[in-house]
Amino acid sequence: MKQIVTGVIGAGRIGRLHAENLIFNMPRQFKVKSIADPFIDRAWAEECGITVVLEDYKEILNDPEIEAVLICSPSDMHAEQIIEAAEAGKQIFCEKPVALDIDRIKECIEACKKAGIICQVGFNRRFDPDFAKVRESVLDGKLGEPHIVRITSRDPEPPPAKYIKQSGGIFLDMTIHDFDMARFLANSDVEEVYASGAVLVDPAIGEQGDVDTAMINLKFANGALGVIDNSRKAVYGYDQRVEVFGSKGCMQAENKTQTRTVFSGADGVVSEKPLFFFLERYNQAYINELQAFHAAVSGTGKVPCDVTDGLEAVLIGKAAIKSLKENRPVKLAEIAE
Amino acid sequence: MKQIVTGVIGAGRIGRLHAENLIFNMPRQFKVKSIADPFIDRAWAEECGITVVLEDYKEILNDPEIEAVLICSPSDMHAEQIIEAAEAGKQIFCEKPVALDIDRIKECIEACKKAGIICQVGFNRRFDPDFAKVRESVLDGKLGEPHIVRITSRDPEPPPAKYIKQSGGIFLDMTIHDFDMARFLANSDVEEVYASGAVLVDPAIGEQGDVDTAMINLKFANGALGVIDNSRKAVYGYDQRVEVFGSKGCMQAENKTQTRTVFSGADGVVSEKPLFFFLERYNQAYINELQAFHAAVSGTGKVPCDVTDGLEAVLIGKAAIKSLKENRPVKLAEIAE
Amino acid sequence: MKQIVTGVIGAGRIGRLHAENLIFNMPRQFKVKSIADPFIDRAWAEECGITVVLEDYKEILNDPEIEAVLICSPSDMHAEQIIEAAEAGKQIFCEKPVALDIDRIKECIEACKKAGIICQVGFNRRFDPDFAKVRESVLDGKLGEPHIVRITSRDPEPPPAKYIKQSGGIFLDMTIHDFDMARFLANSDVEEVYASGAVLVDPAIGEQGDVDTAMINLKFANGALGVIDNSRKAVYGYDQRVEVFGSKGCMQAENKTQTRTVFSGADGVVSEKPLFFFLERYNQAYINELQAFHAAVSGTGKVPCDVTDGLEAVLIGKAAIKSLKENRPVKLAEIAE
Amino acid sequence: MKQIVTGVIGAGRIGRLHAENLIFNMPRQFKVKSIADPFIDRAWAEECGITVVLEDYKEILNDPEIEAVLICSPSDMHAEQIIEAAEAGKQIFCEKPVALDIDRIKECIEACKKAGIICQVGFNRRFDPDFAKVRESVLDGKLGEPHIVRITSRDPEPPPAKYIKQSGGIFLDMTIHDFDMARFLANSDVEEVYASGAVLVDPAIGEQGDVDTAMINLKFANGALGVIDNSRKAVYGYDQRVEVFGSKGCMQAENKTQTRTVFSGADGVVSEKPLFFFLERYNQAYINELQAFHAAVSGTGKVPCDVTDGLEAVLIGKAAIKSLKENRPVKLAEIAE
Repeated sequence: MKQIVTGVIGAGRIGRLHAENLIFNMPRQFKVKSIADPFIDRAWAEECGITVVLEDYKEILNDPEIEAVLICSPSDMHAEQIIEAAEAGKQIFCEKPVALDIDRIKECIEACKKAGIICQVGFNRRFDPDFAKVRESVLDGKLGEPHIVRITSRDPEPPPAKYIKQSGGIFLDMTIHDFDMARFLANSDVEEVYASGAVLVDPAIGEQGDVDTAMINLKFANGALGVIDNSRKAVYGYDQRVEVFGSKGCMQAENKTQTRTVFSGADGVVSEKPLFFFLERYNQAYINELQAFHAAVSGTGKVPCDVTDGLEAVLIGKAAIKSLKENRPVKLAEIAE
Repeated sequence: MKQIVTGVIGAGRIGRLHAENLIFNMPRQFKVKSIADPFIDRAWAEECGITVVLEDYKEILNDPEIEAVLICSPSDMHAEQIIEAAEAGKQIFCEKPVALDIDRIKECIEACKKAGIICQVGFNRRFDPDFAKVRESVLDGKLGEPHIVRITSRDPEPPPAKYIKQSGGIFLDMTIHDFDMARFLANSDVEEVYASGAVLVDPAIGEQGDVDTAMINLKFANGALGVIDNSRKAVYGYDQRVEVFGSKGCMQAENKTQTRTVFSGADGVVSEKPLFFFLERYNQAYINELQAFHAAVSGTGKVPCDVTDGLEAVLIGKAAIKSLKENRPVKLAEIAE
Repeated sequence: MKQIVTGVIGAGRIGRLHAENLIFNMPRQFKVKSIADPFIDRAWAEECGITVVLEDYKEILNDPEIEAVLICSPSDMHAEQIIEAAEAGKQIFCEKPVALDIDRIKECIEACKKAGIICQVGFNRRFDPDFAKVRESVLDGKLGEPHIVRITSRDPEPPPAKYIKQSGGIFLDMTIHDFDMARFLANSDVEEVYASGAVLVDPAIGEQGDVDTAMINLKFANGALGVIDNSRKAVYGYDQRVEVFGSKGCMQAENKTQTRTVFSGADGVVSEKPLFFFLERYNQAYINELQAFHAAVSGTGKVPCDVTDGLEAVLIGKAAIKSLKENRPVKLAEIAE
Repeated sequence: MKQIVTGVIGAGRIGRLHAENLIFNMPRQFKVKSIADPFIDRAWAEECGITVVLEDYKEILNDPEIEAVLICSPSDMHAEQIIEAAEAGKQIFCEKPVALDIDRIKECIEACKKAGIICQVGFNRRFDPDFAKVRESVLDGKLGEPHIVRITSRDPEPPPAKYIKQSGGIFLDMTIHDFDMARFLANSDVEEVYASGAVLVDPAIGEQGDVDTAMINLKFANGALGVIDNSRKAVYGYDQRVEVFGSKGCMQAENKTQTRTVFSGADGVVSEKPLFFFLERYNQAYINELQAFHAAVSGTGKVPCDVTDGLEAVLIGKAAIKSLKENRPVKLAEIAE
């Protein structure tokens, strides 16, 4: 097995998560040589045994020994770093979103193509074993032709209202995962979107011009219909369920819990709440996506999701924003132009 | 307990079901004196011990001993019979839909009001113990404010394509139950509808100008969002599930099965398919709705769903038809005018 | 369908339950002509429309119009009434236990045989649809050869300690149902019993010389092994589960609940407790056993459980008592002698 | 965090599993310096980066740099190696069973005590998160006083009959895990055992004088009752369930599956079979037990299960063998003497 020398750009929550997964779970596959972040926690880096700790990510790009980079910086830096990393000939794993601007994303696609490098986008949920199994049951025909795709995706707590301002709103910071999941499960592109929304959780979110509860209808190219429902706050935790209904049957992936113990007591029969939030829920998926990245870089696998997928998810998000604003179904073709 | 002398108009499948429930399950509450149907199976009536078997329902209306009638005739006769029965001073239980024409339904409302009689409409699903419990959890505040209502409603087999022609199509013959259920669960009227649909099950349905797979978004007066997904054919049977998500929690009602046995074998862990179709699934609900009718007629309870509810369901159905045709959200106010 | 003219002996809780089931659920199959109980509630009988209300059950036996009797009197009267009813040529349905004395039960078997009449014993649990399906899966070979039979049977509340004195103790008043269920599910007789027990719920039960928590091992004639666990008090309600493990798979019947709704809230994911006690849990089973009795009397079915089955259950119970006392496995052959 | 320099004795299936867990999952906690096995796969060792590969385990014991050893050799070498390792002052993790001879186990206890070192025994199931949660609910009083402990433990496939000969039979090679689990869950020692068994799976097992299907009753020192049911062959896979019933409620741990997806198709509603066998099922438990060992060696935690626990499990196993042979309940005191 080839060990890939890697640099990590960005040491925030997700950057540290990926770095730790590479170091402690995939030591045979990856060697984390260096990490760059202006505000890095050096004690943490030392504990992880990362020897090269940098402030400027460009030093990683200039290091000829480094074959692959993980871009985990703030979202608005992703596109620039992708382009620079591509030009430096690095294989790229980039957190989503690639960018919120369509043209910028297209530049990234172009840059990667020109450089002949891989750019995997961090749609981690695709690597969840349950969702992957639903997808597989679509691909292998077990479900027949997909007719209906249903996704429930609810967060345990809303983000601070000020986060909304920079994030692009619910459709670009939260539903964007579900948009990708919808394409993944239907095995088809989305052609049209109708979004409805409401402010039912936190009025401060409404004051930012966003909604906190949403229902989004999707029409897929293959004729299937889809629906995503979102809430910024489910009191019982992180609710992440999917269902694909097809001509030969229906497959559901239910929430996951810490244990499967069930307690029968005077007040009822109680099982556990869903795993708290994405770090717990998609723990295995974060490892799996980097294993897939290893396979893609080593040439033993295909890139499972790239900047094109990132582009599609943003297009759907933009269509949803326009649909909500204008209260009408919006075709992706309108946005893509 | 007061025994109510009753006449049954129409002895098709649903008429016979109701008559048998009255005779064999509620003998203390109801006495079925007579039944009218031009094509009645007299042997069946005899076995049930119904002594007066008529061809013309007007004889039931003219019988002064009869206090209540069950209208189970073909749908296009409902409105006329409601009006006549109201004029004859009978208490009425009528199968849905009351009529497909909005004005005609309003005439029925008027006639009942003028006669001072009860007209309960057969929205049997409201009386399903599971769905009733979800509703109750909305009313008693256990779920907090309702934010999202989700209904999955899929039939085991599509009807013959020619049935579609007379039925008014999927939104008026099938989804109409779900429209009522949505209002029931959200405890709120629907204000706007957006419907998408596709022909994925049977092209013959498409040739009738109808769809066989549908996804309908609802906006409720109380601010909640709703979605209904329908299919004319689920290979695993009659799929009838609801979910209400609110500020304090989420309640789901799953499918019911004949038994709760689970078989673990070499091919997997297998539990039963949902109960086959509406007669099995809503078996208890059909009994419960007539017990509620008894209570309403006896004055010990309120009419749980009347012609006004029937009107609302048809309005939503008409809005869905228009929405699908014009591919835009349609307000109920547009239809009601 | 033949309507069987029936008399009910005993109008306590179970007598009234059976009478109401006959009258309100099976009016075509049975006519309840008379009921006898020295302490009968006449208002109840009137409401049920039973015209002949007697103090002395012998009048029922002397009524030539009556074809079948239901014996629902106190347990210590069962044997005498079976013998008298058999001599009077009545078809018999008798509540369990037939008697606690082995010889007395054998006299009942003899009397029925001599009279050529049917005597069905009220092992109602055999008629529960879930348990019946497990049995059916043993009979039709779906489970292969049965290897292990597991029964969990726990009551919601202990009976008053003084009841224990007359009942014969836990093995004869409570586990006796499970002993019959074990034979039913294994499709085999029991050959040897080892019982352990403890007083963990109520010391007053211990003072009566009985246990309130028990674990009973069974060896079946067909080689399978069985275990029953009992408690007089499960705080979450009436816990009634069975499992048969065989060479081709395992089938479990889980507890039943009022509805299948599930509430996800801040404290967990909560489903309903089991149905409260036997009247609720075996509601359908009580109806089904009388339908089977109707079939047996009408000659369209076989008697599903008779005095011989009652005898076997008591033999196992006696073996369990002896086993607990002597702390050793006890063969049924020891008791039968 | 202190990194413990470790040597692994034995590189069979379980030795390699532990070594890989130390190297690839706990690189901060452990450094695997050397491994000893006369038949070692050197390519595997190289891939794992283990630099010192030995044939003779004594070289590990003689290496002053090594602080801890994992004994994963054939069972009949465990006791000798424990004693030698203790004498060499190494901290010990030893696979079960310690020995099949009671006196030999006592010598091990003595040797560890004398040397003042830790000897953790590999009762991996205690570290399964589900079972650990049931235990915790006993300890924290959530279940009240424990009354009944139920363990179902069935293997997917029987071992070769010749394995039985050396293993000591089902009670010492298979049920021994359940005996430890029973003590763990009841939080109490076992005082008396009654075992029944049958040969229903494979006659060759019977020819070795062993059984392949067993039911074992336990009486605990705290008054609770327990039962374990075993089969060497469950066609649906590795069936590992536990239940503790107490005065305040009941907790169950159900089987675990690869995913929680559910497929509804024409043949039923199908969920996954249990995880195939112990390596998959107890994957996390194997990691957790070594983390606990790290804590115990580092002085940040207590040894969770030691040779005394190993002794108790063997005593119960010996009592079960005697009970089965003599068909009578056997007290542990009889065996311990």
